[in-house]
Formats: sequence, C-alpha cells, structure tokens
Amino acid sequence: MAERTWKVYLSGEIHSDWRERIEAGAREAELPVVFSAPVTDHAASDDAGVGTLGEESEPFWRDHMGAGVNAIRTQTLIRDADVVVVRFGDKYHQWNAAFDAGYAAALDKPIVTLHDSEIDHALKEVDRAAQATARTAEQVVDLLRYVISGELPS
Amino acid sequence: MAERTWKVYLSGEIHSDWRERIEAGAREAELPVVFSAPVTDHAASDDAGVGTLGEESEPFWRDHMGAGVNAIRTQTLIRDADVVVVRFGDKYHQWNAAFDAGYAAALDKPIVTLHDSEIDHALKEVDRAAQATARTAEQVVDLLRYVISGELPS
Amino acid sequence: MAERTWKVYLSGEIHSDWRERIEAGAREAELPVVFSAPVTDHAASDDAGVGTLGEESEPFWRDHMGAGVNAIRTQTLIRDADVVVVRFGDKYHQWNAAFDAGYAAALDKPIVTLHDSEIDHALKEVDRAAQATARTAEQVVDLLRYVISGELPS
Amino acid sequence: MAERTWKVYLSGEIHSDWRERIEAGAREAELPVVFSAPVTDHAASDDAGVGTLGEESEPFWRDHMGAGVNAIRTQTLIRDADVVVVRFGDKYHQWNAAFDAGYAAALDKPIVTLHDSEIDHALKEVDRAAQATARTAEQVVDLLRYVISGELPS
Amino acid sequence: MAERTWKVYLSGEIHSDWRERIEAGAREAELPVVFSAPVTDHAASDDAGVGTLGEESEPFWRDHMGAGVNAIRTQTLIRDADVVVVRFGDKYHQWNAAFDAGYAAALDKPIVTLHDSEIDHALKEVDRAAQATARTAEQVVDLLRYVISGELPS
Amino acid sequence: MAERTWKVYLSGEIHSDWRERIEAGAREAELPVVFSAPVTDHAASDDAGVGTLGEESEPFWRDHMGAGVNAIRTQTLIRDADVVVVRFGDKYHQWNAAFDAGYAAALDKPIVTLHDSEIDHALKEVDRAAQATARTAEQVVDLLRYVISGELPS
Amino acid sequence: MAERTWKVYLSGEIHSDWRERIEAGAREAELPVVFSAPVTDHAASDDAGVGTLGEESEPFWRDHMGAGVNAIRTQTLIRDADVVVVRFGDKYHQWNAAFDAGYAAALDKPIVTLHDSEIDHALKEVDRAAQATARTAEQVVDLLRYVISGELPS
Amino acid sequence: MAERTWKVYLSGEIHSDWRERIEAGAREAELPVVFSAPVTDHAASDDAGVGTLGEESEPFWRDHMGAGVNAIRTQTLIRDADVVVVRFGDKYHQWNAAFDAGYAAALDKPIVTLHDSEIDHALKEVDRAAQATARTAEQVVDLLRYVISGELPS
Repeated sequence: MAERTWKVYLSGEIHSDWRERIEAGAREAELPVVFSAPVTDHAASDDAGVGTLGEESEPFWRDHMGAGVNAIRTQTLIRDADVVVVRFGDKYHQWNAAFDAGYAAALDKPIVTLHDSEIDHALKEVDRAAQATARTAEQVVDLLRYVISGELPS
Repeated sequence: MAERTWKVYLSGEIHSDWRERIEAGAREAELPVVFSAPVTDHAASDDAGVGTLGEESEPFWRDHMGAGVNAIRTQTLIRDADVVVVRFGDKYHQWNAAFDAGYAAALDKPIVTLHDSEIDHALKEVDRAAQATARTAEQVVDLLRYVISGELPS
Repeated sequence: MAERTWKVYLSGEIHSDWRERIEAGAREAELPVVFSAPVTDHAASDDAGVGTLGEESEPFWRDHMGAGVNAIRTQTLIRDADVVVVRFGDKYHQWNAAFDAGYAAALDKPIVTLHDSEIDHALKEVDRAAQATARTAEQVVDLLRYVISGELPS
Repeated sequence: MAERTWKVYLSGEIHSDWRERIEAGAREAELPVVFSAPVTDHAASDDAGVGTLGEESEPFWRDHMGAGVNAIRTQTLIRDADVVVVRFGDKYHQWNAAFDAGYAAALDKPIVTLHDSEIDHALKEVDRAAQATARTAEQVVDLLRYVISGELPS
Repeated sequence: MAERTWKVYLSGEIHSDWRERIEAGAREAELPVVFSAPVTDHAASDDAGVGTLGEESEPFWRDHMGAGVNAIRTQTLIRDADVVVVRFGDKYHQWNAAFDAGYAAALDKPIVTLHDSEIDHALKEVDRAAQATARTAEQVVDLLRYVISGELPS
Repeated sequence: MAERTWKVYLSGEIHSDWRERIEAGAREAELPVVFSAPVTDHAASDDAGVGTLGEESEPFWRDHMGAGVNAIRTQTLIRDADVVVVRFGDKYHQWNAAFDAGYAAALDKPIVTLHDSEIDHALKEVDRAAQATARTAEQVVDLLRYVISGELPS
Repeated sequence: MAERTWKVYLSGEIHSDWRERIEAGAREAELPVVFSAPVTDHAASDDAGVGTLGEESEPFWRDHMGAGVNAIRTQTLIRDADVVVVRFGDKYHQWNAAFDAGYAAALDKPIVTLHDSEIDHALKEVDRAAQATARTAEQVVDLLRYVISGELPS
Repeated sequence: MAERTWKVYLSGEIHSDWRERIEAGAREAELPVVFSAPVTDHAASDDAGVGTLGEESEPFWRDHMGAGVNAIRTQTLIRDADVVVVRFGDKYHQWNAAFDAGYAAALDKPIVTLHDSEIDHALKEVDRAAQATARTAEQVVDLLRYVISGELPS
C-alpha cells in the first residue's frame, strides 16, 4: 500500500514544548506526517498586524489587524489539515484554541484534544466534538502511529 | 417590504441577565426576532446526559454524555440561526462560547461578540471573526434594530 | 421564546412498537415535534418498485427498483430532519439502519442510537458517530424534551 | 493521456483475503491505484482507544474510545477516496460496513458493493446506493481496470 | 404524523399532456404536492429574452438571452424541489431535459425519469442517475403516493 | 399550481428610485415577490457602526465597524434570496454592488444586472456572471413576471 | 510564474476525431494540460457492466449495469476537472453529453460547448450554462492556450 | 516542518507594476509561493472571446464572449488559491476587482486588499471582507512572509 502523507495541525498552547515532543515522536517513529501550526512566537504573533501593515495605536484595532493576519495562516492550515490537535494548557484563556476546535468541527475535521483532567469539565463541549482526548504528547504520537500504520505501542 | 423573521442565537455566559435584556429590548422595539439559546439552567445542563440516558459514575463520561445531548440542541440552533451573538463574561473558562464562535464562523454565520474591553486582547481571534463587537446588551439591540429595519438610535 | 418545530426522523427496526412509544411520549409531553419515518409496512416496502413501476421477475432488480423508490422517501426525509434516531433491534441484518446512520453522519445530522447493550460492541462505530445512545424509547422522549425545552425528568 | 492515480478505499469484512486478492489483481494488471483500508488487525482495532489513550474498564466507553480513534483513519480515507468498495461477508453484523456505505453515499463517492447473492435482499438499500455490485474480488479488479483504462477482460 | 408538502419539479417535454395527467392524478389522490415546471408555452419560452429585455436580431444571442431568463426560473425551482421528474418524449433533441437531470443529479435531488422503452438505450446514463424510471404518468402518481403516504395501488 | 413567494434582493445604487419602480411594478402586476435591500439611507448606512456600537474617531475603523454591521444585513439577505438584482448608476465607485454580484455568483444565485449601455464594457465580467442584463426597472419587472408566471408583456 | 497543470475533461461525441484534434493541438502548443474522457470505445462502453460484473439478459438492466460502471469513471473525472468541454455531433441523441453538462454546471465547473450552429437553438440552455461555445476543435485549443498562457492566436 | 507551497492569486489593476513588485519581493525572500493572475495584457484580455472563438461585431456580445473566456481562467485560479490579493488603483471602474473580492469572500478565501487611503471609504465593504488591507506591495510581501514563515520585518 503506497504511503500517504498526513497533514496534522497543532493548535493551542504556545508556552510549553508539546509541539516539539509530538514532532520528535513522529520523527522517531518515522511517521509520514507534515505538521503545521500557528506562529508560536508570542511577540511576533501579537505584532502580526502592525509589523506588516503599519502602525496602529489603538489596542483593539492593533489586535484586530494582528488577528486578521494570523487568521490567514491558521484558517488556511486548518482547512488543509487531515487532523487537528488542540492543546489546552493551565494558563491563559486560550479562547483561540477553542475557536479553532469549533472551526475544525464545523469543517468535519477529526479533532484530538490534549489536556489535563483538571480541566475536563470546562472542556466537555470541546472534548465531545473531538474523536479522542489525550493526556500526553506521547499519546498523540501513539494515536497518530496507529491511525496511519495500524500499529499499537507494544 | 414584507417582514422577515430573524433568528438570533444567544451563545455563552449563563450567569448574568444579558439574554433577558436583549430579549426585552427587542420586544420593546417590536423587532421580528426569534431568539434561541443553549439550556441556561446550569444544573440541568450538567445533568443533560445522565438525566435522560441513565446513570454514569465516571465524571469524564458523565460530561461526555451531557455534552452530546446539549450539542444536539446547540448545533441545530446555530445551523438554523441568521445571527449568532456570543457573550463572554468575567468568570469561568467559557470555552464552549469560543467553540460556538468557531463553529458559527466556519458555517459563515454572522457573529456579534459581547464582552468588556478588559478581555479584548484574549478574544482578538474571536472578535476578528465577528462582524461586530458590542459592550452592552443594549448595543446588541440597537444593532439588531438597525440590521433589521435600518433605524439607528436617535 | 417562540416555539420551533423540530423534525425527527425515526430510522431502523420496523417489527416492534418503538416508534409508537416515542410518538405517544412526545404527544403526552406536548413536544413541538414532527416525526417522519420510512414506510414501515414490510410488505408494501418490499413491493415499492414493482407496485408502482410495473412487474420485474428477477429478485435482484425487483429489490433494486423497490430500494430506489424507498430512497426517494428516506433520503429526502433524512436531509430534512433536525435529529435522526436510529433503532437497532435483535433480529435481521438491519444494514439499512446503519446505512442511514452513515448517511446522516456525513450530512452532519445529530444522531441518537437506540438499542440494547448486548449489541454495543457491534455497533461501536455507529454509536461513536451519534450524539447519544439510548436504551429505551422513553429515554429518547426524555432526551427530546430536554433538547427542545431544557427540562429534565423529575 | 497522462496517468491518473486512483484512490480506492476497501471497507468491510476483515476475516477473509478479499483485499489481498484485489490488490494482487490490480498489481498484476499494473493499474495506477492506491488502496487504503481500515486497520484490519481485529485485536489492534478493538484496542485502538485504550492502546493509545490509556486504560478504560467500562466496555461501552472502551469501544467508544476505540471507535473514535478508528474513525480518524476511516473517515479521512473515505473522504480522500475516488471509489469506495464495501465488502459484506457471511459473518458478524458488519454495521460499520453499511455505515461506511451510507457515509460515502452522502459524500457522493462512487460505491462498489461486493457480496454473495444470498444476502442481496438484506443489502438492497446499500446496493441501490452503489454504482455496481460485484460477486468476486476478480470482478472488482475487472471493474477497476475498465474504469481506469477502458479495457474489458478478453 | 403531521403532513409535509412535497415539492416536485416536472422537467422536459412540453408538447404532450403528461404534466396535466400527473397533476390531476395527484389532486385526485389528494397528495400534499406542489408542482413546478419550466414555462411550457413554447413561443413564450423562446421569446423569454427579447420579450423582457429588448430586441436582439442575432439568433444565437437571442436564444442566449432567452435561455438566461428561463434558467432563473428552472434552476431556482430545481434547487427548491424535493423530487425532479424528467420526461423525454419522442420528438426533438430535448437536451435541456437531460441537462436538468444532470444538474439535479449533482445537487443530490432524487430523479424520476419518464419515457418509453424505445429510447432506453440512449437514456441509460440518465436513467442510471435516477431513483426510478416510469413509463406512464399514472406510474409517477402511484410512485408519489407511495413515497408520501406509503400506500401502493390496490 | 400553488403560488410560491420569490425572494428578490435589490443591490446597488441608492441615489435613484429604481427600487421603488421595481416594487411598484411588481405590486401592480400582483407578483408574489418579497423584496429586500441594503439600508438605503446613506447617512444611516455610514453610521451603522458608530451609531450602534459606540464612537470611533479614526475614519478607516469607523467605516470598518459600519461595514461589518451592514454586512450582517446584506450577506444574510443575499444568502436568503432567490434572485439578486444589481444596479449600477452613473455615479460613485459602487464597488459594493460589484462585490455583492461576486458574492452572489459564488453562491450560485441567479443575478440580473441593471445599468445603462455606456458602462457595458466596464461591467463585462459582472454581466457575464449574470443571467440577464436589463436597461430599465420596467424590464426587471417584466423579467420577474415572466420568471414567476410565464407571461410576457403583450 | 510556476506552471500549473490544467485538467480538461472531454465529454460527448465518440464517433469523430475531435478529441484527437484537441489533444494534438494542445501537444503542439505545449500546453500543460491533462485530458480525460469517458471510454470512447463504443462496444466496450456498452458492455461495461456485463463485461465486468457478469451476464444480464434484460436490455434495460444490462444498460443500467453498464451506465453505473461508466459513471464511476465519468463522474470522478468531471469532479476532478478544471474545465469540461462538451461536444455535440450531428448524430444520436447524445443525452449523456447534455447530462454531463448539467452535472458540471451544478458543480460550478467552467464548460465549453463545441458544436455546429445548426443545432444552436436546441442547445441554447446548455450553451447558456457554458462560458464559451466553440465551432471547431482548433478554437478549443486556442481557447485553452489563451486561458492558460494569455496568448491569442496571431 | 516540511515546506508548503502557497498559492496566491493577484486580482485587480493591470496598469501598474504592483504584481511584479510582489513577485520580486517574494522571490527575494525565497517564499514558497506560486502566484497566479488574470491575463494582464489589456488588449489580449479584451479580445479573449473574438480572438479564440470567432468574430462578433456587437460590442455587448463581444465583451460577453471575452468575459466568459476570461472567467474560465480567473474563477478556476481563485477557487484554487490559498490567498487572494485584490488591488484597486486610481483609475477605471475596476468592478471586476470588486467582483473577484465578493466571489472569493463567498468561497471563504482569505483576502488582502491593496489600495491607497484616498479610496478607503468607497472600499469599506470590500475591506471589511478582507483579513488585511495593505498600502504597498512591500507590505503584501511582508504579510506573506509572516503568514508563511512567522517572520516579521526587522
């Protein structure tokens, strides 16, 4: 059976190394996966609008410009993805992660959520829209390996 | 011009009276609007699964069952709506509100967000996907009146 | 809040009274629901093709004609439904019920499955695509009442 | 005329060698086809959830987790396919095969069913939604060769 | 079960009374059906463009204008229909009937073809895309009654 | 044949009486048409944002807010329409009219353009996407009457 | 500007050399086009069903089987195409060509029709749904060259 | 992370060098972008119809033919694009640019507008439907670099 490349979008938390751990795990397992993600440099992301389109002093519109530029990237990559992994950490509101999940759900993209059980109750709507809820980056790698090759961890 | 009935879904916060204020304002203005919303009785909403489908002791699955039942209501009403208003309050994670916004955005529903400016930065992605950001329930009523009848507040 | 009429399609088993029990329960609860279903007269359903379009002696084509005529009804009503309830009984292959579930799932219709736990394992893919799995017709009524009015059984 | 690679998804029965026979036939005929399929290792498939996401003792939820993980694979590959072949054998309920057929039908994927005539009547709705019903794996290969290259068996 | 109104579009031949016979039969059977159709006045249909938008002497553009105006009606009504009946008579090219059938097929509308067996071979692609092929207007009425009410002719 | 109500959106120029003439003509002809339109009070339209959502001094953002509020109305009504009439006058850029035409075209809405021949060349792409180009409001009425009732002006 | 490969489906008449002329012209012009087409071997096409799936004596069902198998090819390739060219010759009913045109139109595929002016009136609905009507295979090549490279014949 | 090629369609003004500047900037920045555009040779574009399909003396139909041929190119490339940049200059009506923007918006393509602030007010509806408004070709390059690689200009 010829090898298919899977496109996996990694949405959410940008202040821990969960993306790197999933990417490293997939590389080690030699999975045919191409990962994509939002811009994870927090400062650059906040300046996405004014850094490219010119200055704006009003904070609301500054954010508005930045969010528009970031949306070009994120919505294109989500539409392009086979699987969307959404990570919720223990800090910040992370409404953009939940927004991405809703956006992916309406597009019929399979979703995998990744978060601790402490926030299960608050995330129940998001988890219900997902095909799987993982607790660790390693579980996401195991899941991707199974989905792609049918192999379970021994 | 014959009168069209507009369907407006009111998503988000369930611990303040913003829905009542919008509904009262629309009634007073005699707008041809039908409002819909998630189940806003917090206790009932949490028991939506076990209260209808039978007991489940494990919290994750209890929530999973409840979220499934609630999703039958919310996703049907969002798909059916002309406009989706999403309210973010000052408490709780409110990931379901952001999820609804993402869901509505991917379905090309016009979104109006309603929240204080204190949380503007955290909501920038959601606000960007919206056609309008309001600060008060009264502004939402003004907006609906204008959208429907073309009249601005005097 | 103005009353919305919900359209519920009842797919699957035709040899027990589960539809009547759901319809009676909904009537008793005064739910604003319109139910629809396939033709449940087994003999008529089998003769749907030859009874309307003329004789055919070859069993495969006889079935083919009948299934075409029945599909005009079932696929139209499923596309039209807000909620699709799929009942699996303890007899027959019931592949058409599973087919309807897959069809509804791809159309993003919320699905409620209704079956005994003895066949849970065999139905796991179908149940996973559903928003809820009920064991009794009464639970389906409870679920519909909650979804429509927010009220749980006392 | 430049060569197009056709993507064919092989859904259904996992306890006979029909997939191998189709793949061998296509290879022998040098057809430009990439086949895909669900995970066909029955034990692995049943453990897809707990084997990747962690233990779960309740059978219903264990199946639910597994079915979610498997659905990431199957629904992605069906959406990606040009043609979906669905095989029904003489054992088990095979509701997932019928579910896949309904899912593929609603997505406008051409379906080829593959089964013995003994179960024709029970499969009439599924066969009606298919563009072809084959009796042997060899016929599926002949059909694919014709569809791709226009050549009939001599 | 509350009564649903079915929308049936009658495409094709305009030189025989098949539409009247179907409409009379449906009326007699008291079927809840609303029929729609292209403009069946041949002369008016040919003048649809120049008769509303102003003169045009070049035959190709005269037809082009007329076909545009007619398409506003026909494509709107086909998109709106639950069922599309396509009649092929024994005269004229009737390419617009076949075009309508293809258009309806791609929109997943159930199609019923109506024609004599003499032209079966030439219509095989159209018939294959239909859920049923009828030979007489009366069969179409029988089919609609069965689809709507489940009753076969006695 | 039961009467269908047609929904017609009137996009474009707001400084002449073309809408009133079409509406009067349709009323006189007793056509079953419901018309909708953008807010045609120029001043109100320009203040749609700041008049409902609060002050904004920067012209770009002031327009941005207003255009968002207006888009809730216009995009909802265009999505809801059966036919979209787009009028281009002899003043102003009227880019929003052309934008509406592109929006309607991608949604497969039948378009009727209404403009003088002086601007034909500049409007060729828009006219090509339309099913008809009219020169006068009266022609639009004639066209609607024909489309709805099949009657040509005598 | 990097080169894009255009996919062009050639539908319709199979008894003249128009496909070969278009393909030769495109090859000569070194256009980056991949052509696809139905099976153009008339005898093979008629036997598509019985030649792959087994014997069938009844002509209607024999055609039905063949049309199903052929539809797997044609509908897949039309869905995959950037441009659909539909050729009408001077013989046969060619309803499948008109069906393909309707199918392509509803999928928003750009259509080019190719036929003599003698049959313009009968093809007016199909021509109206097309972006261009050509009279010769050479014009189709000229059109493709312009569409792809912007060059007109000198 | 493997490199994705982004497809960017450059719509609008054809009488200045903005496309060349964006393409040069992207090349210099080594961005993985493939640009596409309408035919920008004004004379060829105007002759697209008569230059390929044969003579036509009536200006309206001459334009109509040309616009049809050009639409095959533009609508295909817009549907294929990840991002659509729409440039408005200071001359001509440029309704086709606004039409393209509306077409892209309804297809959920991210839009970047590019124009001077003098025409902001007239373009407010188009700008509102865009994710970003740039003033210079260099800003578009900066935006594309950020969207693709996350890097802001230093």
